Amino acid sequence: MLIGVDLGGTNIKVGIVNQEGQILYQNSRTTNPSRPYPLIIQDIIEQIEGCVSQLNGTVEDIKSIGIGIPGIAELQTGNVIYCTNLSWYDVPMGEMIRTHFNKPVYIENDATVAALAESVSGSTKGLANSVFLTLGTGVGGGIIINHKAYSGSHGAGSEIGHMIVGENFYECNCGRNGCLETFTSATAMIRYAQKRIREGVVDTEILNIAEGNIENITAKVIFDSAQKGDQLATEVVERMIKYLSIGIANIHNMLDPDRITIGGGVSKAGDALLEPLREAVAKLAFCKGVIYGDITLAQLGNDAGIIGAAFLGESL
Amino acid sequence: MLIGVDLGGTNIKVGIVNQEGQILYQNSRTTNPSRPYPLIIQDIIEQIEGCVSQLNGTVEDIKSIGIGIPGIAELQTGNVIYCTNLSWYDVPMGEMIRTHFNKPVYIENDATVAALAESVSGSTKGLANSVFLTLGTGVGGGIIINHKAYSGSHGAGSEIGHMIVGENFYECNCGRNGCLETFTSATAMIRYAQKRIREGVVDTEILNIAEGNIENITAKVIFDSAQKGDQLATEVVERMIKYLSIGIANIHNMLDPDRITIGGGVSKAGDALLEPLREAVAKLAFCKGVIYGDITLAQLGNDAGIIGAAFLGESL
Repeated sequence: MLIGVDLGGTNIKVGIVNQEGQILYQNSRTTNPSRPYPLIIQDIIEQIEGCVSQLNGTVEDIKSIGIGIPGIAELQTGNVIYCTNLSWYDVPMGEMIRTHFNKPVYIENDATVAALAESVSGSTKGLANSVFLTLGTGVGGGIIINHKAYSGSHGAGSEIGHMIVGENFYECNCGRNGCLETFTSATAMIRYAQKRIREGVVDTEILNIAEGNIENITAKVIFDSAQKGDQLATEVVERMIKYLSIGIANIHNMLDPDRITIGGGVSKAGDALLEPLREAVAKLAFCKGVIYGDITLAQLGNDAGIIGAAFLGESL
Repeated sequence: MLIGVDLGGTNIKVGIVNQEGQILYQNSRTTNPSRPYPLIIQDIIEQIEGCVSQLNGTVEDIKSIGIGIPGIAELQTGNVIYCTNLSWYDVPMGEMIRTHFNKPVYIENDATVAALAESVSGSTKGLANSVFLTLGTGVGGGIIINHKAYSGSHGAGSEIGHMIVGENFYECNCGRNGCLETFTSATAMIRYAQKRIREGVVDTEILNIAEGNIENITAKVIFDSAQKGDQLATEVVERMIKYLSIGIANIHNMLDPDRITIGGGVSKAGDALLEPLREAVAKLAFCKGVIYGDITLAQLGNDAGIIGAAFLGESL
């Protein structure tokens, strides 16, 4: 049995995954992240035991346990270096769960886990080298090299959202300026639209859909308005595409993967995102003689967390 | 016998390298790059035969032949996709040399080759993951992942010099704007100094050393002037450090290698480069709990081309 744990700021989801990357059973509890971490880890343990007994198995049937977290961990020891949403710093989650089950436990960043899931049974299935980007509140990245999850020598790699690609009008949460995340996340699109409206660009469909309140603006509102030909919305989308294409060109020039796949809330724009993005990336191609990896949408959605985590041990 | 070939725009250098990464014998010919490519390849073949007979060997003693080129090639087939300095496009060099010797032939970008050499017997020896940057006329990059040279799915990866990191006052040779190369190469430093002097900043030690002629400005002139406290030179060096630290922070956030090592002409500035660079990179650290890979100077200099090429077959 491969156990996958998707530890998020809102829910803890645990599932059993087969060798084809399908979830056989899963359960979920509320994270309640303000609790002391041993309680959260205790929940994970109980959820794993619940999964195993649901499939009429025993702990002995577990091959390995993988956990995806919204933070950075040492893959092998399972030490969580930090996990902002949970306010965790230096938490020995891997050791605690390993001690309980006496089974291998692996912990990785959730975007890396999603990248692995997509490469096991999703949009990058079977490809040796791929990169996964999730465009949501922030921008996360996962790198697959030679069919394996890659997150560097200290677990701090694949933070593609914090690639500096220019200068921006506001600082990133990480304290720096110009991170890809501040140009291409849903938050970035919303902030730029709000900024332009505050500057006086008020004749816009965005405000109509948002009922005149800039706090109601979402990435979907912006994409929907752009589809209707709205000028400001088009400007916001074009700006996002410009920087996302730079980020992807940088990935091409650095890692030259077989494919780049995009998930997260912003990816729900579908072709309205993909088509101009592919065009912009093609214009930035460095080596004209090379057919670079294509850009597609991720396929697994929320299941990627459990599936990828379950395969962490398999991809070593 | 491991044969390494360093095919440059000026010279063709061929050597025999032992398993410790030491050059046992080498020879050199002028490239004369305007010749038809079969003549250049014929020279390489003769130079290899010359090396082998110098060590009293035969062609049968050759284990593999590796070739580093200032361009992009398919590692396994040895097809040269392009090689600007030689005006080569789609040249089947690998096949021609393989057919002649009936031995494995591998071709890679010269910066990737140098990265491999440094990881075999230089500044990154024994490290699993490392990145090599060469700062010269342009900026080249080489990536080692899990002790192996990595250049992506189509041989077009590790082009770190063409990572877009901002907006610049001139376009890159590749036709795009904002490539790392246009901020951090020797050429970039010279162009920025020349621009500032043209703008009227003429009271500078740079012009004194350059005997009043901006065409005489070199990276060394700029570093030497900065060491003397010259204001413009300090500005030029600081600008270069600013963008190089962004490039290196992006490498940290993407690949999180054990070490980043710097070669090429600009690296001759030594501590005048390294010390402010390390300081600037530390300020950009994304994950405060992580001790990122350090930054050092490359050790092998011009030998890296032969040594790394010879090890291409060993690092598959």
